[in-house]
Amino acid sequence: MVQRNAFYAQSGGVTAVINASACGIIEAARAHPDRIGKVYAGRNGIIGALTEDLIDTSCETADDIARLRHTPSGAFGSCRYKLKSLDTHRAQYERLIEVFRAHDIGYFFYNGGGDSADTCLKVSQLSEAMAYPIVAVHVPKTVDNDLPFTDCCPGFGSVAKYVAVSMREAGFDVASMAKTSTKVFVLEVMGRHAGWITAACGLAAEVEGEAPHILLFPEIAFDAEAFLSRVKQCVERYGYCAIAVSEGLHGVDGKFLAEAGSVDAFGHAQLGGVGPYIAQLVKERHGYKYHWAVADYLQRAARHIASRTDVEQAVAVGRAAVELALAGKNAVMASIVRLADRPYRWQVGSVELKDVANVEKKMPREFITPDGFGITAACRTYLAPLIEGEDYPPYRNGLPDYVRLKNVAVAKKLPEYAI
Amino acid sequence: MVQRNAFYAQSGGVTAVINASACGIIEAARAHPDRIGKVYAGRNGIIGALTEDLIDTSCETADDIARLRHTPSGAFGSCRYKLKSLDTHRAQYERLIEVFRAHDIGYFFYNGGGDSADTCLKVSQLSEAMAYPIVAVHVPKTVDNDLPFTDCCPGFGSVAKYVAVSMREAGFDVASMAKTSTKVFVLEVMGRHAGWITAACGLAAEVEGEAPHILLFPEIAFDAEAFLSRVKQCVERYGYCAIAVSEGLHGVDGKFLAEAGSVDAFGHAQLGGVGPYIAQLVKERHGYKYHWAVADYLQRAARHIASRTDVEQAVAVGRAAVELALAGKNAVMASIVRLADRPYRWQVGSVELKDVANVEKKMPREFITPDGFGITAACRTYLAPLIEGEDYPPYRNGLPDYVRLKNVAVAKKLPEYAI
Repeated sequence: MVQRNAFYAQSGGVTAVINASACGIIEAARAHPDRIGKVYAGRNGIIGALTEDLIDTSCETADDIARLRHTPSGAFGSCRYKLKSLDTHRAQYERLIEVFRAHDIGYFFYNGGGDSADTCLKVSQLSEAMAYPIVAVHVPKTVDNDLPFTDCCPGFGSVAKYVAVSMREAGFDVASMAKTSTKVFVLEVMGRHAGWITAACGLAAEVEGEAPHILLFPEIAFDAEAFLSRVKQCVERYGYCAIAVSEGLHGVDGKFLAEAGSVDAFGHAQLGGVGPYIAQLVKERHGYKYHWAVADYLQRAARHIASRTDVEQAVAVGRAAVELALAGKNAVMASIVRLADRPYRWQVGSVELKDVANVEKKMPREFITPDGFGITAACRTYLAPLIEGEDYPPYRNGLPDYVRLKNVAVAKKLPEYAI
Repeated sequence: MVQRNAFYAQSGGVTAVINASACGIIEAARAHPDRIGKVYAGRNGIIGALTEDLIDTSCETADDIARLRHTPSGAFGSCRYKLKSLDTHRAQYERLIEVFRAHDIGYFFYNGGGDSADTCLKVSQLSEAMAYPIVAVHVPKTVDNDLPFTDCCPGFGSVAKYVAVSMREAGFDVASMAKTSTKVFVLEVMGRHAGWITAACGLAAEVEGEAPHILLFPEIAFDAEAFLSRVKQCVERYGYCAIAVSEGLHGVDGKFLAEAGSVDAFGHAQLGGVGPYIAQLVKERHGYKYHWAVADYLQRAARHIASRTDVEQAVAVGRAAVELALAGKNAVMASIVRLADRPYRWQVGSVELKDVANVEKKMPREFITPDGFGITAACRTYLAPLIEGEDYPPYRNGLPDYVRLKNVAVAKKLPEYAI
């Protein structure tokens, strides 16, 4: 068989386990030296491909690659950069092919969410549209869990575990302070359009009355009066009220409750601050003393409390991507297929990228209680296995011993290119 | 020997390990049935004593008491309530004695910080001032680490570990996003007057350039120009800048920055949140994209990532308090005595409560670098052992299996009392 090199890149917001997928890909590729030469990683995602800024992962020891399994964030750097349409920005694709050709890259592995699936799909079309032979496989990653046609997205299970654990712990805290001090606690979590992370907070409550008492989903328009009345009811009944709110909570007018005004590279509004907003609202109306927390990056970087299920799935989709590529499956995404709920059984499958790209999987209405403030039994059945198991990183000096790779640059062969 | 009952209460903000001290006290008391009858816990701290709302801990199984070791928050409820002066509020003390006498309480264990040490001191004086025989021993607890005459305060080591781990993880995250997105990350931590928790964030950086790059202490008046120039330098040198800021940061005028009168997107006064304030300041001046997190209760409730050193010390001061009481040592606090830095060796000692009450131990200036933005080697030597070791709780259904006690009320013998 012909041996060709592979390109791997990380895209979009990073997670606690995206490096576990990188580990799966690199280890699987190394197991096929007859088919795959080197794995070149793009420094800062697809930008590394465009600017010919490639990292030679063959310079890393097997031990360091194995340590990626327990290291959060993107070891090669990520980016928020979406390729434009092939019709209007042909030069960009020609540049990609130039770089791929210069480094004999025949496999393209892209590790990201919905936007990245779209980029991966475009690259997969180069084979036909521009007569450059390449197999492109997408490796799912997103804390938001919003990719369709996969049971879940690697990255989500660990955030889910982090927020559920944090909510349980904060709930115990507030419960013990409520008599003379804090009565309301608000935790703001990620999930701009899909409420999966908010829903995961709900796992912390296993018995009636346990925290959290109210979940505010981006799928449900915020009804201030109904919310305030529920808060009062909780404080009167349980002595306190713990609330999880999605950063993407919006009113009936469709506007985000907390709009920071700035936008990110994709034109998405940059959010932050609906937690304090909600807490202040409760204070103004009911006078309850409150505390609020915004977990922000802590939630998606929290490898120290990653879900073992999530870590295993992240590694598995990485390995599967290599197998799919070697089998010549172009334009697909490795996926997770659920076989059983309890005990949870799953296997890796694959789906067509064209079905995945740019589709956002929100919470189904039947996963949210009729009043809009909680999760249903069906939702628990779905979510529970995703936070199962712990997978602690090693510690040194009291701190997680995460790996920093050497990230040796591959010698450039082409002229500079400005993006 | 005469057998008498003991009273135990938790006071002030709770921690990840205050229940570990409760475990130490109750187990040690149970080991001396000839001297100590029952341990009655105050429901919601000293308020439970005043209102005769006592919990009979003898109704809890040995196994459940052992589980307190790995359960965060205050299992019996805490309170923010400080006894007034004996001279001006004698009736309150007479009520206390009435309750103690009714339930044959001869030992008083109070688990809290500086304010609580003061309350404990006042109770210890009842013996002499009001001729009621009682031995009062204080058990230190505070995330702020601001009690004097003890190497550290149980509760602090676990917050320190949580913020150091979180800062390391968020630092990895920002580093991988910085090329095209977030360049500045701000983590707001607790510590209104003492910067110990902020300092602990600094442990995450072991090598030049690692996050965090800037620490903002409550002990150092905020110099916006020096800060902004340092942020720019970091972004230019390392590609990003990670900042830890104390909730108690203040300007040269002594005013908290979070109360500086800034207004959010809704026209509300900035809601707590010196973290978002600092982030916005950087954005306005340098235009860097930012993220911020406010850990709030998550940091002090995070039993899932508690420091083993801290847990062991929390249990030890609880046990020691019982030994001190049985030895008749009134008006003392169990303390931690450092014997060696590396490897860390410590033992339990005791200090006079009158020396502890109402004294706040701030960071010594020599623990902060001359520029005011970092910690010195001496500070690292002090802090490093306090976050050593992990002490994971057991998990069930993917979540920490924390105990909820039965908290059976002791039958009241006295008339109602309004506080």
